[in-house]
Amino acid sequence: MPTAPRLVMKFGGTSVATIERIRNVALRVKREVDSGRQIAVVVSAMAGETSKLVGWCKELSALHDWAEYDQIVSSGELVTAGLTAIALQTLGLKARSWAGWQLPLRTTDMHGSAAIADVGTERLITSMNEGNVAVIAGFQGVASGERVSTLGRGGSDTSAVAIAAALKAERCDIYTDVDGVYTTDPRIVAKARKLNKISYEEMLEMASQGAKVLQTRSVELAMIHKVPVQVLSSFTDVPGTMVVDEDEIVEKQLVSGIAYSRDEAKITLVRVPDRPGVAAQIYGPLADGGVNVDMIVQNVSEDGKFTDMTFTVGRADFERAMHVIERNREAIGYQRLATDTNVTKVSVIGVGMRTHAGVAAIMFRTLAGKGINIQVISTSEIKISVLIAADYTELAIRALHTAYGLDG
Amino acid sequence: MPTAPRLVMKFGGTSVATIERIRNVALRVKREVDSGRQIAVVVSAMAGETSKLVGWCKELSALHDWAEYDQIVSSGELVTAGLTAIALQTLGLKARSWAGWQLPLRTTDMHGSAAIADVGTERLITSMNEGNVAVIAGFQGVASGERVSTLGRGGSDTSAVAIAAALKAERCDIYTDVDGVYTTDPRIVAKARKLNKISYEEMLEMASQGAKVLQTRSVELAMIHKVPVQVLSSFTDVPGTMVVDEDEIVEKQLVSGIAYSRDEAKITLVRVPDRPGVAAQIYGPLADGGVNVDMIVQNVSEDGKFTDMTFTVGRADFERAMHVIERNREAIGYQRLATDTNVTKVSVIGVGMRTHAGVAAIMFRTLAGKGINIQVISTSEIKISVLIAADYTELAIRALHTAYGLDG
Repeated sequence: MPTAPRLVMKFGGTSVATIERIRNVALRVKREVDSGRQIAVVVSAMAGETSKLVGWCKELSALHDWAEYDQIVSSGELVTAGLTAIALQTLGLKARSWAGWQLPLRTTDMHGSAAIADVGTERLITSMNEGNVAVIAGFQGVASGERVSTLGRGGSDTSAVAIAAALKAERCDIYTDVDGVYTTDPRIVAKARKLNKISYEEMLEMASQGAKVLQTRSVELAMIHKVPVQVLSSFTDVPGTMVVDEDEIVEKQLVSGIAYSRDEAKITLVRVPDRPGVAAQIYGPLADGGVNVDMIVQNVSEDGKFTDMTFTVGRADFERAMHVIERNREAIGYQRLATDTNVTKVSVIGVGMRTHAGVAAIMFRTLAGKGINIQVISTSEIKISVLIAADYTELAIRALHTAYGLDG
Repeated sequence: MPTAPRLVMKFGGTSVATIERIRNVALRVKREVDSGRQIAVVVSAMAGETSKLVGWCKELSALHDWAEYDQIVSSGELVTAGLTAIALQTLGLKARSWAGWQLPLRTTDMHGSAAIADVGTERLITSMNEGNVAVIAGFQGVASGERVSTLGRGGSDTSAVAIAAALKAERCDIYTDVDGVYTTDPRIVAKARKLNKISYEEMLEMASQGAKVLQTRSVELAMIHKVPVQVLSSFTDVPGTMVVDEDEIVEKQLVSGIAYSRDEAKITLVRVPDRPGVAAQIYGPLADGGVNVDMIVQNVSEDGKFTDMTFTVGRADFERAMHVIERNREAIGYQRLATDTNVTKVSVIGVGMRTHAGVAAIMFRTLAGKGINIQVISTSEIKISVLIAADYTELAIRALHTAYGLDG
């Protein structure tokens, strides 16, 4: 007997924020069960719970043990998984909750931001074949020594996609508090439009450029395993945005969306000796320290002896980055550091760029027309990002949204 | 090399209610570590957390799945275990947290009130021998199918004593919000005195008769394994009450303490056929249904055909007990049920009763002197309990405290 098609449904913190909302989640799940599918539900902690737990860790110690942090912050998802299972049972469904270690969902040992190594599905599939809805605590797994690990903020999306891939699910539905992926943040641009479809590559850039709707690693995983992902709201009944293979998108836009991130910090090493290997001396230790460097600019050396090196990091990594750079001052040999945390990164994204020239030119011309100075530029095949002063964020996004013909 | 003496320190919910209090717990633990002991700390959830989680389960379903309940309510202890480990680390100590499943602390499958079957200590002892303070989440274990189980309310005391026994600890210190065991509840009798020592048997009766200071099963375990238990306050520095073997108590009192429980319910089966086997037909199904019957009275049959059967259960079991009795109405054949939940059980306890007659007579005379009607009586070797109308609770306790010469 062939097994029923499988669907993974992931519900974020706002979707399970109260008992009443958990009941609604159960009703949504029941509809899919009634349609003849096997369902794995992945849940986040109730909104605010994880922040509360993280706050306690920080209150005790700025440099807390990450394995203990994981033990603490992973508890919120256990609660919602159990509550959701009970809510499903009250609707007459068979359901059981799963902690990360029970699957087991094995991860690397980088506590606090572990990567998924393997999703154990044997017991899960047995349970689902017995008619149980599986309710899985997202965001968590188990590292070596059977210690609990977490996947970092937003990790429940990653859990959901990884589980969908492991279960060979036909789709992974990510329920959240927005009803899909928009051309840009509707709070900034009233004319922003919801996209019916977006390619993995574009979604990946959107996510990594600050669009909060899906966690970056979850999109990467979906892309690798070709898991169709739908982003939709748990509060409405309208279809969301499908994240799919580029081939499945017929009408390709030049630019699909405009993302931005205010959580940026810029660090400039002033008067670094302009010699081979200096970049390695800067970025090697940063990588070793777990700092994700984003944009990098090296100025042309005026005298052939010294240059300025500018890079950006996420605001969360700023202090760690400064610590690493200051500790390596002697080896690098810079004169002084200049920093700016009052910056925003604005990115235009679209697979159309691959085949159309002039996308960057439109961006630069539009920003220049508004008198906005570009501090750093970085590009990829389907994305152009610029760093600008934070004050110009809204102005820049609105102007670009119009310039690329995205206004609804 | 002989290992250092081991001490188990258990901290209840009020002792870990805030981050500041968790810091204080860490300081207390450090003192014991500095005295050269290996320490296992057992923690409850922060005060109020477990009730909040239980409330959510009940809000979703009155007849919730107990395995899911366990998954949910066990999360509070994981949080305090992790936080306490971090607090210890900030004092320069090595520490790590342990979930019940990580030890593993194996339990029976009676979810919601599982019994401890085995305490795995191999990994724990290895870790402690490496210089780590072990911080263990109390109240929880793991049942078959690797599902999380809990030991029922107050189960952290039981965890602590079981772990002390398994580790062959020299003592188990139970830190709570009172500074020891009193002759009776000081909120009712201002002249109540703190006991320096009390025997396991007496403590067991005190606990099972409603004194909230130690959980009954934890005392049973301590008695079986001869683990000396100290009850003391985490908010003061005065010595607490030692719970020890009867042989170690030199001056034996006639009565050591007076306990009471308002959480009682009385059920009377009116006009039950007075035939052999009827008691089995009543109490068998109750036991099967997990209902703990406490006091039992069977009236003398007037006509040789019918009798009344009265029993008491904990208030928490009342509805379940009624459900069982009503379901078995036909088999039992009673005429109707009479119930009273407005009753209190008052117990006088003392190992001195073994050798002195007249203890019961003092009790009955004292209560009669105050015009208090005794509804049900039950006795054991070292305890006499009576059920009275709840309104007379304080009056009865004060009169008995004076009558047995316990006033300080």
